[in-house]
Amino acid sequence: MPRNFADRLLDAVHAKQNPLCVGIDPIYARLPAEIIEHKALNDESDAEAALDAVLEFCRRIIRIVAPLVPAVKINSAFFERYYWEGLEGYFDLVQEAAERDLIVIGDVKRGDVGHSAEQYARACLADPSFLNLDDRVAPDAVTVNPYFGLDGVRPFIDIAREEQKGIFVLVRTSNESAGELQHLTTAEGLTVAECLAAQVSAWAADEGLIGESGYSCVGAVVSTRDLDEARRLRARLDKSILLIPGYGAQGLGVEAIAALLGTNGDGAIVNASRSIIYAYQDPEYNEDGEQGWESCVELACKNFISRLSGHVVSS
Amino acid sequence: MPRNFADRLLDAVHAKQNPLCVGIDPIYARLPAEIIEHKALNDESDAEAALDAVLEFCRRIIRIVAPLVPAVKINSAFFERYYWEGLEGYFDLVQEAAERDLIVIGDVKRGDVGHSAEQYARACLADPSFLNLDDRVAPDAVTVNPYFGLDGVRPFIDIAREEQKGIFVLVRTSNESAGELQHLTTAEGLTVAECLAAQVSAWAADEGLIGESGYSCVGAVVSTRDLDEARRLRARLDKSILLIPGYGAQGLGVEAIAALLGTNGDGAIVNASRSIIYAYQDPEYNEDGEQGWESCVELACKNFISRLSGHVVSS
Repeated sequence: MPRNFADRLLDAVHAKQNPLCVGIDPIYARLPAEIIEHKALNDESDAEAALDAVLEFCRRIIRIVAPLVPAVKINSAFFERYYWEGLEGYFDLVQEAAERDLIVIGDVKRGDVGHSAEQYARACLADPSFLNLDDRVAPDAVTVNPYFGLDGVRPFIDIAREEQKGIFVLVRTSNESAGELQHLTTAEGLTVAECLAAQVSAWAADEGLIGESGYSCVGAVVSTRDLDEARRLRARLDKSILLIPGYGAQGLGVEAIAALLGTNGDGAIVNASRSIIYAYQDPEYNEDGEQGWESCVELACKNFISRLSGHVVSS
Repeated sequence: MPRNFADRLLDAVHAKQNPLCVGIDPIYARLPAEIIEHKALNDESDAEAALDAVLEFCRRIIRIVAPLVPAVKINSAFFERYYWEGLEGYFDLVQEAAERDLIVIGDVKRGDVGHSAEQYARACLADPSFLNLDDRVAPDAVTVNPYFGLDGVRPFIDIAREEQKGIFVLVRTSNESAGELQHLTTAEGLTVAECLAAQVSAWAADEGLIGESGYSCVGAVVSTRDLDEARRLRARLDKSILLIPGYGAQGLGVEAIAALLGTNGDGAIVNASRSIIYAYQDPEYNEDGEQGWESCVELACKNFISRLSGHVVSS
């Protein structure tokens, strides 16, 4: 039996001594010149050539960050944009990252009614069971949208239990208009996000999902700049590891992260995407514009780790 | 400039004299024996062979229903289950249905923060703009998850405006646990679904989205057996064409549908999936088990149309 996902994730956090997750959201227009130029055929209007360049960039990011961080989050939207070949590329990267002992989170944000959610859970989270794909792996965990209630989440939980994988249920997101739905307030004075946190907490509490660490395979996506809200959501999600987006480009500060990490300091992983993978475009790392893009990525990654260093348990 | 999506959809409803949308959610285990057997290699554990059989089944369904109904809804979950080749198959079916003059709804239920939603909108709704894919079409409309608020929906609305396509925002779904989130009640006494309906109504009202019919390219997914709720949501979503799932296998009745169709009787399309595509397994159509599966599909489709016939405008 493989080890519980929450335990594996926390093992990785302790081994790397930091909770940083590097988000891989590649955009062709932001690729370094070296990548664009390395094949004469690369051309944004040619799907295959553009995808080739995107995948080369991502593979090199994975190799740079693999020794430094416990996890990567690969956002499938940026690969689906290249249709079926993009989806194959996404799975290639999942494999590349898994082979480098990274915990791989597939950021797919799927959600549907039960019988369709079952298909998505098979498609996105279960390791492929087809004869001709049996050397392929799926991500260790995926993000899941809860709009359908438990029906729509249960098939993912079932796969998580059977294959010792994980899910992160969207609870509170970091975008500007997130509150339009997530901050509607119930008659009891709770926000939708808080009500949902209580539901996720109940789903997470199932004995078969809890690891030795006391954390569950059912995690949650939570990001907020409001420290009180951060503490309230952390308290409600007492069995869940939080995936915290919004660090870096979206401006989430270390105080909010500290509140979300919880009392032991190991209840969350912290994602940064654009601020690391495009560090070569940031004057902080490339003032003269002449630094190699790969060294900028490495430097940004180390810099983010160091900023988080006061907030993680060293086991 | 192509014609507004809402107008095109209503043209198709009027031309076919019914608002039925056939949902294509194929499961290998439920395929007719004739399809499974027609290639010796078909085998559920072989992804390519299983997908071949699934696609053959779907192509034949599309050919049967194309003369009868205005629209099909193709659920991408059931194709993503076959990974990248499944996704290519999904786009093949979108093309097949479009060539047969059906309105094609891609049931993808995507939703994300803005910069990722933009990628999904390009991936799922925009016609491909890559040189090597320029003979491909994307669906006329897609389903969108609103958990992120307007940020996450806007990229889809932008594509809808630019390419005269449509979206159906999930508001009230038909599954058992839908109410866990959608029926949380605010301090003002409104459900989350009702609050969302008001938001969708505001998004739909943008002048550039409204067609000659008075309806918007921004529609909504609504299904409920509660007649009062149906009338309240219909009233709030006054500019939106509703996509009503749950007819047939999920047991939504004609009274609820009538309430959702609205006063003119043309404010919605009504989806039935399993109850049509697997009609050959239903004693109503195949009492002796000896009817051809294709004639059962045709009969079920006509039967559903006839049950809806009192509730649609003949233009």
